[in-house]
Amino acid sequence: MSHNTFGHLFRVTTWGESHGLALGCVVDGCPPGIPITEAEIQVWLDKRRPGGGKFVSRRQEPDAVRILSGVFEDERTDGLVTTGTPISMMIDNVDQRSRDYSDIARAFRPGHADYAYFAKYGVRDYRGGGRQSARETAARVAAGAIARKVLGEGVMVRGALVQVGPHAIDRSRWDWDEVRNNPFWCPDSGMVETWEQHLEAIRKAGSSTGAIIEVEATGVPAGWGAPIYGKLDAEIAAAMMSINAAKGVEVGAGFAAAALSGEENADEMRMGNDGPVFLSNNAGGVLGGISTGQPVVARVAFKPTSSILTPKQSIDESGAEIEVRTKGRHDPCVGLRATPVVEAMLACVLADAMLRQRGQTGRTEPVPVGQG
Amino acid sequence: MSHNTFGHLFRVTTWGESHGLALGCVVDGCPPGIPITEAEIQVWLDKRRPGGGKFVSRRQEPDAVRILSGVFEDERTDGLVTTGTPISMMIDNVDQRSRDYSDIARAFRPGHADYAYFAKYGVRDYRGGGRQSARETAARVAAGAIARKVLGEGVMVRGALVQVGPHAIDRSRWDWDEVRNNPFWCPDSGMVETWEQHLEAIRKAGSSTGAIIEVEATGVPAGWGAPIYGKLDAEIAAAMMSINAAKGVEVGAGFAAAALSGEENADEMRMGNDGPVFLSNNAGGVLGGISTGQPVVARVAFKPTSSILTPKQSIDESGAEIEVRTKGRHDPCVGLRATPVVEAMLACVLADAMLRQRGQTGRTEPVPVGQG
Amino acid sequence: MSHNTFGHLFRVTTWGESHGLALGCVVDGCPPGIPITEAEIQVWLDKRRPGGGKFVSRRQEPDAVRILSGVFEDERTDGLVTTGTPISMMIDNVDQRSRDYSDIARAFRPGHADYAYFAKYGVRDYRGGGRQSARETAARVAAGAIARKVLGEGVMVRGALVQVGPHAIDRSRWDWDEVRNNPFWCPDSGMVETWEQHLEAIRKAGSSTGAIIEVEATGVPAGWGAPIYGKLDAEIAAAMMSINAAKGVEVGAGFAAAALSGEENADEMRMGNDGPVFLSNNAGGVLGGISTGQPVVARVAFKPTSSILTPKQSIDESGAEIEVRTKGRHDPCVGLRATPVVEAMLACVLADAMLRQRGQTGRTEPVPVGQG
Amino acid sequence: MSHNTFGHLFRVTTWGESHGLALGCVVDGCPPGIPITEAEIQVWLDKRRPGGGKFVSRRQEPDAVRILSGVFEDERTDGLVTTGTPISMMIDNVDQRSRDYSDIARAFRPGHADYAYFAKYGVRDYRGGGRQSARETAARVAAGAIARKVLGEGVMVRGALVQVGPHAIDRSRWDWDEVRNNPFWCPDSGMVETWEQHLEAIRKAGSSTGAIIEVEATGVPAGWGAPIYGKLDAEIAAAMMSINAAKGVEVGAGFAAAALSGEENADEMRMGNDGPVFLSNNAGGVLGGISTGQPVVARVAFKPTSSILTPKQSIDESGAEIEVRTKGRHDPCVGLRATPVVEAMLACVLADAMLRQRGQTGRTEPVPVGQG
Repeated sequence: MSHNTFGHLFRVTTWGESHGLALGCVVDGCPPGIPITEAEIQVWLDKRRPGGGKFVSRRQEPDAVRILSGVFEDERTDGLVTTGTPISMMIDNVDQRSRDYSDIARAFRPGHADYAYFAKYGVRDYRGGGRQSARETAARVAAGAIARKVLGEGVMVRGALVQVGPHAIDRSRWDWDEVRNNPFWCPDSGMVETWEQHLEAIRKAGSSTGAIIEVEATGVPAGWGAPIYGKLDAEIAAAMMSINAAKGVEVGAGFAAAALSGEENADEMRMGNDGPVFLSNNAGGVLGGISTGQPVVARVAFKPTSSILTPKQSIDESGAEIEVRTKGRHDPCVGLRATPVVEAMLACVLADAMLRQRGQTGRTEPVPVGQG
Repeated sequence: MSHNTFGHLFRVTTWGESHGLALGCVVDGCPPGIPITEAEIQVWLDKRRPGGGKFVSRRQEPDAVRILSGVFEDERTDGLVTTGTPISMMIDNVDQRSRDYSDIARAFRPGHADYAYFAKYGVRDYRGGGRQSARETAARVAAGAIARKVLGEGVMVRGALVQVGPHAIDRSRWDWDEVRNNPFWCPDSGMVETWEQHLEAIRKAGSSTGAIIEVEATGVPAGWGAPIYGKLDAEIAAAMMSINAAKGVEVGAGFAAAALSGEENADEMRMGNDGPVFLSNNAGGVLGGISTGQPVVARVAFKPTSSILTPKQSIDESGAEIEVRTKGRHDPCVGLRATPVVEAMLACVLADAMLRQRGQTGRTEPVPVGQG
Repeated sequence: MSHNTFGHLFRVTTWGESHGLALGCVVDGCPPGIPITEAEIQVWLDKRRPGGGKFVSRRQEPDAVRILSGVFEDERTDGLVTTGTPISMMIDNVDQRSRDYSDIARAFRPGHADYAYFAKYGVRDYRGGGRQSARETAARVAAGAIARKVLGEGVMVRGALVQVGPHAIDRSRWDWDEVRNNPFWCPDSGMVETWEQHLEAIRKAGSSTGAIIEVEATGVPAGWGAPIYGKLDAEIAAAMMSINAAKGVEVGAGFAAAALSGEENADEMRMGNDGPVFLSNNAGGVLGGISTGQPVVARVAFKPTSSILTPKQSIDESGAEIEVRTKGRHDPCVGLRATPVVEAMLACVLADAMLRQRGQTGRTEPVPVGQG
Repeated sequence: MSHNTFGHLFRVTTWGESHGLALGCVVDGCPPGIPITEAEIQVWLDKRRPGGGKFVSRRQEPDAVRILSGVFEDERTDGLVTTGTPISMMIDNVDQRSRDYSDIARAFRPGHADYAYFAKYGVRDYRGGGRQSARETAARVAAGAIARKVLGEGVMVRGALVQVGPHAIDRSRWDWDEVRNNPFWCPDSGMVETWEQHLEAIRKAGSSTGAIIEVEATGVPAGWGAPIYGKLDAEIAAAMMSINAAKGVEVGAGFAAAALSGEENADEMRMGNDGPVFLSNNAGGVLGGISTGQPVVARVAFKPTSSILTPKQSIDESGAEIEVRTKGRHDPCVGLRATPVVEAMLACVLADAMLRQRGQTGRTEPVPVGQG
């Protein structure tokens, strides 16, 4: 993780501002020979895209991705495959409304990174949040689509929204199929109406609300992750915390583990037909920073978006004390669109961990018990 | 963060196993001319050292640090100063009891990283947990002592235990002076007795318990942190999650922010005598991955240590199903000794962020409002 | 230096193939507030551009660079300045002749990297050399233009061709002004005609020839470079050797130093009005990997381009033994166009070294003698 | 390559000054399960060790290496194997003569890095050159011994001295067996006496002389190296140029390639029994930054050591103009002891390239011709 690049062997560099000409990413270090098409990547971008519901920003961006390099026709299949060289992807900014920014150009909006960027750089593209805009996450999703292909079909990465504002789902009703049935990525059908009412009230009030997303990856073999400082969960924590508006990350039992006893927390092991099995997963699939073969499970907390109608006290670049009140389109709950981003970041971290494990040990599969 | 190294300009590489000859670290990229003595580093190591109370491991390690390189006498002061070259520090392992490890050599202890290391590497130093031992954190504390010197006296990094098992402190009673008055790093004098009873019960039962540590850094100027993927909070998240037994990290309001409205969460700003001031700190001192000048605040959740007397089901390297029960010395609550480690990691992240900000912009102080 | 990225704080990532849609680079870590325009970058690209003389490829590429991100209007000057966020630059490939590649699609051209790419990746974009094409160097030149702005006017980076085939210049006749007066970047007016005749003979024979380029940077303060493994000359060596067709790099006296005695080689020092001065520069401005304040001087040897009319023995992907003979446009001497690339790489290395020195020490100027 | 660390997956960090307590290195990312003993590493250190002949420094250092971490007993063999965790190695400085340094403490010796370190850091360990001492290379040799084990027996790395002062060997008489028969690592028995006389004259005069070392690695499979900026030859160039006193690096035909025609330079290919064969090796085993399966060949030029008896003009930290004349032990030709260092650096670069190739592609062997 360094400035605008993350990953070690599977490396992603993103660029672009909200209202610039375009945004994009360069994925470097991708294994060669992997079939990939723009359409496959577009599928994931479409999941992230605003414009789909009444609770998300009305900015109309097709978010059409173009692959500019790093793929070539495979003579055996006539399809495109990765060549091992950098994959450059670009998404044009189409709906950059050329509105008048004079009211916010010099203001520091409370809860936004306006002041922080000013303090750091002294100059900033204030249009639509510039580089701090959540629009940057489109590039992550494009990279994540490549990462999924690297991981292959054996690894499935999927996420769901588990809390909106104060309303948490009932985990006993968790149904992955339900996630597709509502616009909230909600796995609990009994919670959908509550969220809808909550969000409607928030929207009408010109307010906003936070959320928690849970993500899991199944099919991750034991042995991935690079202790001590490249621990799989440390990489996941950094990847998630780098997402706009994220304020917390936890793995497995997470913060709840603090209240547990050692007896409650320990995941016991038995031998299954295909190797070790665990009788619980408080670890969230990671022990000592290394995957255990269980599902890798993480949760990410998002703060409410800072764009609200209620006037708030602030200052501007001149030091004048002002009031700031958001006008125009915005998302009342950034969490509603963040699930594909959270999934993408986990996929990228896992693809990188897979390549690193293969680099160091020559294997992606664990040393088998009984033969080690 | 890469394998056993973290940091970009202020880089720390650690090495060593629990029961090997020694452990240590190399701190690279440290600015030159900083006065430093072994005694100053020892102060922090002594805070982390086991043996001090009845609720921590009885392993007797003096943890005496030696500086092997990177410092030299300064003719102007006759004291030692850093030279800008790598600072190698070593701590001998003195109390490596040469006990018989045959009972655990091939066992996978539930909740430990035994199986994960086996699956990854196929071979592991099982004595005392080897590389996965919390003993590795002594090297972090030594590095953190250097980082504090780099940050200078203007930045203060300090932590406290805010929850042990199910017992959270009352934040309204927070008193930093109280932290030194009890063996638990507890800032709430009203909670000390409760924790003592809880820990005594845990100890008698041969059980263990989790904990939450809060850490803050005051005096951090606005402008540190390297968006997008080197965000200050992303670096903090990775640093904290890399600590043994950590399962969650949050910044500012953290997971609680998910339940807040935008109005509640936004930290309003006014002009103070010395520049911008914020009227609250839900952000935890970080917006858009960049410090805001407010205290940087993070919390880390630790799971209960996995070493418990109650027999638990597991398997061994041969695939045989076994029962595992911890014998010998262990910590019932890893959180009791982790505060100096959490502080050290935050200090290292901040020192690195300071040098990176200075590298990119030539400043460590923010662009001043009113002149930018 | 890692796959398609180089630099530590001033980081350049390039992407693109010779006959893809476009090529480009992302410059990350650039200091904020630096005025920059596309026109300023274009100046350097135009120097590298083919099509200018009869001894270079007749491919017609305007090489028009577009800045897609990382700059914004500065309200004080109304001009564009860097914002500290990633600067993405793109150059469209316009003249991708859609010729028939069936004759070379599976062939390994001797001296090209065709076989090496095949052996590594199993798949490759063979059109125009794909990623191994010297066309990639356009992205380096664009990055180098930014690096020059970071270095400021005090540092001047300039190069010249000092040998073409067997014909080396007479250094006693070196005249920097002469470099602009001939199409060969030749600083020795007495050598221009010899080179012209040599190149004409080479061109008529469908052959090619090697070359040596010398580059210097004046105005580099003492103290830049990060020993031991980030030595300034080590970084320069890597940067130069990464250029297509480079086979050797030397600094200062270089290979000739092997034949010198210690007395001949030692650069003596005296005190000048503005600080230390050296009476010679066998060191090439670098001692112990750190700049000395003297001009940084390096030379790079380029092999003859491998595209020649004479049929050469080779094999193809099927293992069939074939003869390969280059058809179509090509450069008889890659060195003729490499000077702007060599300059750009040196500028990038120096900009990175400057930021790193500033990061570690807070200074870009040396500790002054007499006060240190 | 970053400050005191090099390598990407096989990473080496070195530390220590010439006259400090010790020096050492940490090798991180080493594959697990590789048998290794201190004795095996010592073999290579003994080759580098001074004290063996009358033309090298008389400093008496046993250079006994100790492995402090990262190895453990393998139950199957009862021998030590790497565990995949950091291998820390330390070499005590035994013969740190506690002489009086007052004469050089503030002097800048011509040709040394004294002034450069002062200008950069303002403070330096002047005893024996401190961090700039060639003694640091002992740590490289220890790391290189590990790298050789990673590469396995199929890859052989070996070097020879090919020029001392103005006296170059006759390559037609090259005999690798001869290298062991003389104290100069000379592969040409006809040159040994000339060098001996030259060095004797140099020694008597209190002078010094430069040298050129050639190194080759055989058995390197095609496909290693990470274009564009992690090219195998770019990594080799950086690694070699990072060695003390190195002033130039070339691969294959190197600087001589500049004078060749395309016809002379192109290495033609045919099919051999075991795959592609080249009919010459002007490329030095690297095309496009990727290994070709031919021997990897590089040469490194070393300047004469700067420690000479003849007084030279210089200045000191106060700015006073002085004369400097070396007293005490020194090497008249640093090249005489650098061959094991050059070999070690090549071994480390290749081990890293092997792991990176395996990480990205899952293979260390090339895609076979005829099946790709």
